[in-house]
Amino acid sequence: MVTRKEDFSKWYIQTIQKADLMDYSPVRGCMIFKPNGFEIWEHIQEALNYRFKQEGIRNAYFPMLIPESFFNKEKDHIEGFSPELPWVTEAAGEPLEERLALRPTSETMFGDAYSKWINSYRDLPMEMNQWANVFRWEKRTMPFLRTSEFLWQEGHTAHATAEEAKTRTQRMLDIYAEVIEGVLAIPVFKGEKTPSERFAGAERTYSVEAMMQDTKAVQAGTSHYMGTKFAEAFDIKYLNSDNEHVHAFTTSWGVSTRLIGAMIMSHGDDQGLVMPPRVAPQQVVFIPVGPWQKNPAIMDKIYELNEELASKQIRTVIDGSDNRPGYKFNEWELRGAPLRVEIGPRDLENNKVIVKARDLDEKVDVEFANFAEYIENALDEMQNRLLESARERNSQHIYTDINTLEELENHIEAKKAANENPGWILAGWDGTEESEAKIKERTGFTTRNIPVEGTVDKKAECIVTGKPAKETVWLARAY
Amino acid sequence: MVTRKEDFSKWYIQTIQKADLMDYSPVRGCMIFKPNGFEIWEHIQEALNYRFKQEGIRNAYFPMLIPESFFNKEKDHIEGFSPELPWVTEAAGEPLEERLALRPTSETMFGDAYSKWINSYRDLPMEMNQWANVFRWEKRTMPFLRTSEFLWQEGHTAHATAEEAKTRTQRMLDIYAEVIEGVLAIPVFKGEKTPSERFAGAERTYSVEAMMQDTKAVQAGTSHYMGTKFAEAFDIKYLNSDNEHVHAFTTSWGVSTRLIGAMIMSHGDDQGLVMPPRVAPQQVVFIPVGPWQKNPAIMDKIYELNEELASKQIRTVIDGSDNRPGYKFNEWELRGAPLRVEIGPRDLENNKVIVKARDLDEKVDVEFANFAEYIENALDEMQNRLLESARERNSQHIYTDINTLEELENHIEAKKAANENPGWILAGWDGTEESEAKIKERTGFTTRNIPVEGTVDKKAECIVTGKPAKETVWLARAY
Repeated sequence: MVTRKEDFSKWYIQTIQKADLMDYSPVRGCMIFKPNGFEIWEHIQEALNYRFKQEGIRNAYFPMLIPESFFNKEKDHIEGFSPELPWVTEAAGEPLEERLALRPTSETMFGDAYSKWINSYRDLPMEMNQWANVFRWEKRTMPFLRTSEFLWQEGHTAHATAEEAKTRTQRMLDIYAEVIEGVLAIPVFKGEKTPSERFAGAERTYSVEAMMQDTKAVQAGTSHYMGTKFAEAFDIKYLNSDNEHVHAFTTSWGVSTRLIGAMIMSHGDDQGLVMPPRVAPQQVVFIPVGPWQKNPAIMDKIYELNEELASKQIRTVIDGSDNRPGYKFNEWELRGAPLRVEIGPRDLENNKVIVKARDLDEKVDVEFANFAEYIENALDEMQNRLLESARERNSQHIYTDINTLEELENHIEAKKAANENPGWILAGWDGTEESEAKIKERTGFTTRNIPVEGTVDKKAECIVTGKPAKETVWLARAY
Repeated sequence: MVTRKEDFSKWYIQTIQKADLMDYSPVRGCMIFKPNGFEIWEHIQEALNYRFKQEGIRNAYFPMLIPESFFNKEKDHIEGFSPELPWVTEAAGEPLEERLALRPTSETMFGDAYSKWINSYRDLPMEMNQWANVFRWEKRTMPFLRTSEFLWQEGHTAHATAEEAKTRTQRMLDIYAEVIEGVLAIPVFKGEKTPSERFAGAERTYSVEAMMQDTKAVQAGTSHYMGTKFAEAFDIKYLNSDNEHVHAFTTSWGVSTRLIGAMIMSHGDDQGLVMPPRVAPQQVVFIPVGPWQKNPAIMDKIYELNEELASKQIRTVIDGSDNRPGYKFNEWELRGAPLRVEIGPRDLENNKVIVKARDLDEKVDVEFANFAEYIENALDEMQNRLLESARERNSQHIYTDINTLEELENHIEAKKAANENPGWILAGWDGTEESEAKIKERTGFTTRNIPVEGTVDKKAECIVTGKPAKETVWLARAY
């Protein structure tokens, strides 16, 4: 197997296939989520559904097909999405009168429905989410990170005031950060996208961005404040307490199955996947060792210990196959199982097992009496360790002292020569699209987001023009 | 509001709209699942996922778009589905080289993948499920029961032997019956579909059928044994222990969001929905009565009682709106909330609440001390009551003594004249498609299924020809 250092993209593709997370499909750009890959998504769904419910946001399901005329109602929206849309033009043997797009996102459908459902301020806020498949016909695809069909959740809300809508936009960004850090163990950088990177039709777009091991960025989640743009396009009005019909303020926000890709690129190593315990399909794998087949007491003990973990809702698997232990060790390391529990005749005699965490080298003897408690703690500790070690790694790849485009070009050259990754640059920016375009053209770096006020030191000058900086912005190469 | 007796279909449409379960969409035949409707589906999903997991069946996700060439591999399959397919013919501004169908079902996609993933008997059984949206372009649609896009689960399995595949087919039918009866409180009739009603491409199709209040049948779930037909079409072969490459035996099985429609038509009454507690989004609704706004202790008590139920995972809602209690009572009856809890100043003094079950007329005084326990039992009791009363109603509409087509025609006429529903007929059948077609032509009744051996008395003669009956079959009008 290729190492991350040799070829990170190739390492990624090999790893996800060998770990049985996905397969390619006969349809260009569309992939199959195999059970080991899909279950990661199910755990992300649980974590988000729990938080959505706490916020009073319920799930709905809207039709996948969107009439062409709907897109044309919001000019920026159609311009942004039309290059990527697949179209249904015939059904049941007959051409359709109007083309129907496979949804790339559903602001238009929610907008049309909200305009019917919202009448007075009593109907507000109206807040719904849906879990759905969406389509964006991509030229270059990469499993999980960029595919023509993917799975996501999209929340859509309407509010009586701009304030309330802005609060919802921020709150969802915070929830994304909580889940991506707390469940996927990926540290994120919160901030606002520049105008050129905004969602098509939004007034403001916020994102959480994550740094992969090759220091490329992944936009891990976005939250959009629409102002009244979609309300105007779809006529979402309510009767306010002054008896006037006024436009509502809307938001939308989403994360997708690209989080699975981000998780793999954040934690994997040259032996394969490293799964954060909270999303691992198998959190603990039991492997009998030594002449266990001749000693049935070993498997009996494994069943007993397994039962202890099952009662704590810990997800386990017992590998009682005929393969050699060494083969099984490799296999489960490749699949990223957080904890491995070995037990052989000697261990049984000594009332203990051997536990190894996927991300550590040492093996630990654990007595039967403390087993379940030890495992429970060890899973929590590994979860925290993965987040901390990703944070630590990130901090080594952040550059705050690059002040001109030339310095950035030199930095990139030097890193390339040393076979190292270029990292992320915290830069001053004059706020113009021209400067942003120049950065991209000369370095391949793009603006990721403008960090939340107060979280980083302000830059004095624009990295391109040397003029006073309007904002401070993260620059990086991105997936 | 129209009553069930006056116009059952109209009653259904009014009820689901007033109870806020769904809305129509701008796309012909496609509907919006609003949160109250979608949550019913979420509870069905939980119940099925739990059982799938116990069976060792995991969830996956396959691409929605299916290349036209895939359909052509199984002749019966394409013949059965092609009249209903929508096609994507262009994407990203360009015509596609090959049309892509929106999946009506995914045997072809799983078949193609399984042929790659299955090599030896060690890979078998291979068993996966997916939750997905599917498309069948319908001419006549009805919310939940028949829509152009709907949601379902489809399981696909491959086995080394015909026996094992048949066992899986039967087991899934049993699981559907368990969930539909145990969770949705709808009694079902298990049996095998006649050849003309088989899934396109199956060797045998089994179904669970349910009787609605208008005595029309709903096919509530199906399980198919494919033999080696799909394995031959998609080249799913494995190396058996004799070192020969042989075809696998496959199955598929599914239930859809039409179960939501079946649930409504089974339990609803002229006041609106009646939700079985296990799927009700709100199981208990608290309504303060009397001059409660002047007496804050009432709401405090409600919060306290609500907390007791929350700790038992009971889904509750507190209606503290400004509307009159009578209005609220009607509203929550319309929405089908299983239990209503009223509390006013007098109740508070007497340390009790008043509880009313949606399906019973009487109100019961319940002391605070027994509250949570009472509610827990009352929910279980209502769940059982709904199933039993549906069983009782079914038994009143089953006719086993109609032996000729003429008798059936007279029966239908007589029922019509009395403004009663025609029910289901248990009939003898000579097993020919001609007889089946004649029944449909003359009466509008179709064969539902052939009951599981031994569950009903065998019929001696065919209802059409009077010849010796090959099988006994349920006849009914159907949705």
